Order: sequence, then structure tokens, then C-alpha cells
Amino acid sequence: MISHDDNFWMKMAIDIAKEAKSPFGAVLVDSEGQQVAMPNTSKFDGPTAHAEMNVLRRMDELDYDYPEDLTLYSTVEPCPMCMGAIIWAGIGTLIYGASINDAAKHGDQIMLSCNELVQRSDTDIVIKSGLLSDQCQALFHQKL
Amino acid sequence: MISHDDNFWMKMAIDIAKEAKSPFGAVLVDSEGQQVAMPNTSKFDGPTAHAEMNVLRRMDELDYDYPEDLTLYSTVEPCPMCMGAIIWAGIGTLIYGASINDAAKHGDQIMLSCNELVQRSDTDIVIKSGLLSDQCQALFHQKL
Repeated sequence: MISHDDNFWMKMAIDIAKEAKSPFGAVLVDSEGQQVAMPNTSKFDGPTAHAEMNVLRRMDELDYDYPEDLTLYSTVEPCPMCMGAIIWAGIGTLIYGASINDAAKHGDQIMLSCNELVQRSDTDIVIKSGLLSDQCQALFHQKL
Repeated sequence: MISHDDNFWMKMAIDIAKEAKSPFGAVLVDSEGQQVAMPNTSKFDGPTAHAEMNVLRRMDELDYDYPEDLTLYSTVEPCPMCMGAIIWAGIGTLIYGASINDAAKHGDQIMLSCNELVQRSDTDIVIKSGLLSDQCQALFHQKL
């Protein structure tokens, strides 16, 4: 098994976003390196079809015993809808690039950080922010 | 066309919850009285399949011109995941029975009110709380 680092998976999330001409891509990875990668498709699949929701709905494709073993990579800090879903799903680690504040420069956001939502819950989740943030922020400047 | 009042629709949400032996049921209604009613199915369909998410995913079954014309009835105050989805979907009116504080007596909740999430957004949505609250709270005492 080839082990990949966080940069590898975030680059995959960035590529997924680019292919979809969206700023939002997400990859969910298990401890064996199996992954599900999905773009935001809310223009086509409705308002709940954010990238993070799309990968969480396909969790059953992964080979994992405990959801806390899973790591979700997202090009942008999850909104409260997606962060709520991540909490309910019991995901162990979240790594994102651009912040909600970054995203708010380009469109309406619900201005509540994922850390704040975690603090309102009983959940333990490791959160790392700002990975490849410049490349993730550049996604907002694609010709969509 | 027969016009129904809020109690009628909330009773439908309660019945949907009872049938599924869940405390959580939701009904989405358009201005013509067309409706989609769905229970929580998270035990079977995964952690994001809350009642409110389930009806929102079926919005396209309704005959409406503007999402702000839609009213969502829920037996329990939507969690941040569901409330985020309601905001993104542009729903105009939310009416719920039991509160998140009521629900927290019976299981883990993310302790953030739907009003607080709306205040963090640019959304206008009419929210009415406590409709048939006793009947909605009683759903938590069903033999599940």
C-alpha cells in the first residue's frame, strides 16, 4: 500500500473542484487509503449537494471499521450544514484549505466556523485549517 | 382546493414520525397545498438522512415558483445541518414543535438554535416554534 500525505489528498480535492469548475471539492479517505472524491453539484443536484455532503453520502464505499478513522479533505471550510453532517457521521479528522471568511468574499455564506459548531457538540474531531490555502482560494477565480 | 391550517400539517409530521417509530418527521408544503412528507431514516440511510434533509431532497416533487413560498413543518427544531440546508434551499417559513433543548433530554444534540444560525446568514425566514409541542415531545417516549 502506498501511503499518501495530506498534500496529496488536498491536491485531489482541488483537482475535483477544477474539473467541476467549482471552488468546492472534497475527498473522504479511510486508513487504508481508499477514497471517495466528489465535487459540489448543487447547481444540478439541489441545494444540499455540497461537496462534503456528496462524499458523506457515499461513505459506504469505503472499507473502514470506525468513522473516527476517516479523514475528510475539503477545499473550503465546511458550512454549518456540512459541518453538522460531519459531526453526525462521526468523522475523526477534517482538513480544509480556504476559510469561510475567504469564501465570503465571493458569495453569501453562513458565518459560523466549523470550530464553533464542534464546541456546541459532544464531538471530538481533529481540525487542521489552511492547507494549500492559496491554491484553494484561487479556485474562486476560475472562469465558471 | 381545500386549505389546511398549520395544525393539520404538523399533525401530518407527527403521524409520519409515529409510523417510522422516530421522534422526527417533517412535511414540506407549497402554496397550493401540495406536500412531501418524510421521516428521519438515519438508522437506515446514513447520518445525513434526517427528516428535514429527506424532504428537502424531494423539493422537486412540489409545484412552486419560488422556494420562499414553501413552508417546512418539523416535529423538532432543525439541527444546524438541517437548518443550514433550509437556509441554502431558500425556504420561506419554518414551523417546529419541540425545541433542541427538549430533544437534548433524550440524546446528543448540537446545541445551536435555528434562530442563531439564521442570524449568521443573509436569510429572511419566518420561524414559529412550539406548535403542538407536547405531542411532539411525546414522540420521544414512543417504544422505539
